[in-house]
Amino acid sequence: MSGSEAMPAAPLAVSLGDPAGIAPELIAESWTRRGEVALAPFFVVGGGNVLAAAAHTRGIDLPVIRIADPAEAVEAFASGLPVLGDADAPVQFGQPSREGAELALHSLTQAAALAVSGAAGAIVTGPIAKSKLAEVGFTQPGQTEFCADACGVAHDDAVMMLAGPNLRTVPLTVHVALTQVPALLTRDLIERKARIVARALARDFGLSPARIAITGLNPHAGEDGRMGREEIDTIIPAITALTAEGLAVTGPHPADALFAAHERDRFDVALCMYHDQALIPIKTLDFDAGVNVTLGLPIVRTSPDHGTAFGIAGKGVGSAGAMIAALRMAGECAARRAAGITA
Amino acid sequence: MSGSEAMPAAPLAVSLGDPAGIAPELIAESWTRRGEVALAPFFVVGGGNVLAAAAHTRGIDLPVIRIADPAEAVEAFASGLPVLGDADAPVQFGQPSREGAELALHSLTQAAALAVSGAAGAIVTGPIAKSKLAEVGFTQPGQTEFCADACGVAHDDAVMMLAGPNLRTVPLTVHVALTQVPALLTRDLIERKARIVARALARDFGLSPARIAITGLNPHAGEDGRMGREEIDTIIPAITALTAEGLAVTGPHPADALFAAHERDRFDVALCMYHDQALIPIKTLDFDAGVNVTLGLPIVRTSPDHGTAFGIAGKGVGSAGAMIAALRMAGECAARRAAGITA
Repeated sequence: MSGSEAMPAAPLAVSLGDPAGIAPELIAESWTRRGEVALAPFFVVGGGNVLAAAAHTRGIDLPVIRIADPAEAVEAFASGLPVLGDADAPVQFGQPSREGAELALHSLTQAAALAVSGAAGAIVTGPIAKSKLAEVGFTQPGQTEFCADACGVAHDDAVMMLAGPNLRTVPLTVHVALTQVPALLTRDLIERKARIVARALARDFGLSPARIAITGLNPHAGEDGRMGREEIDTIIPAITALTAEGLAVTGPHPADALFAAHERDRFDVALCMYHDQALIPIKTLDFDAGVNVTLGLPIVRTSPDHGTAFGIAGKGVGSAGAMIAALRMAGECAARRAAGITA
Repeated sequence: MSGSEAMPAAPLAVSLGDPAGIAPELIAESWTRRGEVALAPFFVVGGGNVLAAAAHTRGIDLPVIRIADPAEAVEAFASGLPVLGDADAPVQFGQPSREGAELALHSLTQAAALAVSGAAGAIVTGPIAKSKLAEVGFTQPGQTEFCADACGVAHDDAVMMLAGPNLRTVPLTVHVALTQVPALLTRDLIERKARIVARALARDFGLSPARIAITGLNPHAGEDGRMGREEIDTIIPAITALTAEGLAVTGPHPADALFAAHERDRFDVALCMYHDQALIPIKTLDFDAGVNVTLGLPIVRTSPDHGTAFGIAGKGVGSAGAMIAALRMAGECAARRAAGITA
C-alpha cells in the first residue's frame, strides 16, 4: 500500500512550531508541493499571518484559508493552506519571542487534542525551542513527552524512532550523559521498547513481524566479553527472551558495520543503545529527510528531525525535505490505521 | 599532486595477510587493475603459490614473478605480480592453519623491516587473524602496534586513522569497553594525538594546516554541561590549547550531525572520542573502500579496513575496493614523502 491509495480517516493536524523558526516556511512550501509528493490533506493550528509572511520570504504567494472545523480542511486543501482558528503573533524570523512561544504552545496543545479526539488523523509537530516554551508553561522535556501526556501514556512507553529513506533507528536511551548509559540499559528496558516497536511497525508501517536488529553497546559488540560485559549480561538475555516471544530480533550487532549499505536491507529497524549510536547513521545518510516518529501512542505523531534553525529562518535556504517526509509518513501511518491493515 | 604524477622512492611492500583469508585474492585482483587505478609498483613478501591459487578462485590467471630484491619489483610489476622470496604454505581458503599463520607473520615481519630500511616505500598490510598469529609468536594487540614496534615508536604515538572517499576519522580510544572511555579521555591524550594527526596530514596528505574537527563525548556535545561535563572539563580546554599552538581545530561538535554531507566539506579529519563514534560514519558511508592508515610512524603504513573474511575467502565475491584504496593511498603518501612536499 502506498500513501496515495488509502486515506487517513481525518485531515492531519500540523502544529506551527516556533513562529520565528523555520517551520512556518517549510509548512508553506510543503503545501505548494502537495500534489507532486502526494500529501494527504492537512491543516495548521493557528498562525495564518505567520505562515503567509514565512511563505513570502521564500517567494511563495500562499493562499491561507481560515477554517473553523478540521473537517473543512479536506476540501479547502486543494486551493489553499487551511489554518484552524485565528490565533496569531507578530513575528520577526530568527528572533524568538514570548508571544511566539505562546502561539507555538497553543498550536501544539490544540493539534494534539484534535489528534486524540480523532478530529485529526495525526499530528505533525513543527520544531520548537524548548527553553522558550518552558517560559510560557511547557513542562515536558520535549514534544514526544508532551504528546505522551496528551494521550495519557507514560513517557517511557512513548518510543522515539528516527526514520529516513535509508534507515530506521530507535535510541534506547536519549538525552543523558554517556557515562550514565550502561546503568540505564536493563533487560526490561530493551524488551519493553522492542515490544512497542514491533507492535507499532506492524500497525503503522505494515511490517509484521518487523525485523529488529539490536546493537551491542561496546566495540565489536564486546567480542564475547573481552571489551565489556553488557552484551552478555543484558542484551543477549533480552534478545533470547524476545525471540522466545516470537519477535524477529537479531543481535547484538557490532554497531560500526550495521549501517553499511549491504546490511541495511537485512532489518527494518535498528534498536540502538544510546543517542549518537542511533543518530549518527541517520544524519550521516539522510540529514535532510529524517523524520522523528513517536511509537507506542494511540495517535500518529511525526516531526521533521531538525530544530527551529533560527539562524536561517526567513532566508529561504532551509530544505523542506524533512517536513515533507514527516507529512508523508504521518499520512501513510494514519491511512494504515484507518484501513486497519497490519501486514 | 595526484598519485600518478609523483612516485614513491621505492616499491611498496605488501604483507600477505592470513593465506586462508581474503587478502591474497584481493591483492591479485588489485594487480590486474594496476593501470586502471594508477597503482604505484608493489610486491608481496612470500606466498607466491597462495597468490596464484587465490587468483585462480577469482578467474584470474596471475603471472607471479619471483624476485630476490625489492628493487626488482618496479620493472617486474608491469608484467606480473612480484613476490619476494620463496616462503609459502599449503592453503585451503576459509580454513586458517598454523602454517598459514607462520607465513603471515613472516610476511608481515619482512615487509615492515623493508619499509623501515627504506628498501620499500611503504607497507600495506593484508588482514590477519590475531588469535591465530598469537599462537605462532605475534605478541601485539594488532598490526598497528606491530608496525609501531618495528619502528621503535611507542604504541600511544601510533595513531589509527580511517579514511574513505568521503571522510577521515581518528578514534581517540579504540578497543575498550564503553564504560572505560570517559576516564581514558584526558587533555593530554587529545592534545598529543591531535598534534600527531596534524603533522601526519601535512607530511603525508599535503593538508597544512589540516582542519581538525573534534567531537563531543555526550549527546549534543553535552549542551553546556546539561548532559555530561567531559566537554567542559577536558575537551574544550584541549581545543583551546591546540588553537593557541596554531592548530586548525574546531569543536566540540555534536557527533550526530558532524558527518552529514554538508558538514563533511568543512574539515579534513574528525577526532572522535571512541570506537563506534569514528567507525559508524566511515562504515556507513564507505564500507567497501575504507583504509586504515597509521599516523605518527617514520614509515607509511596502510591497510584495507576489513578482516580476513574467512567466510567468503576463495568464493570470488569479496570486493577489492578497500585493498585498492589502501594501495593507492600508500603510494600517494610515499610519493609525497619522497618529494618532501608539505602543502
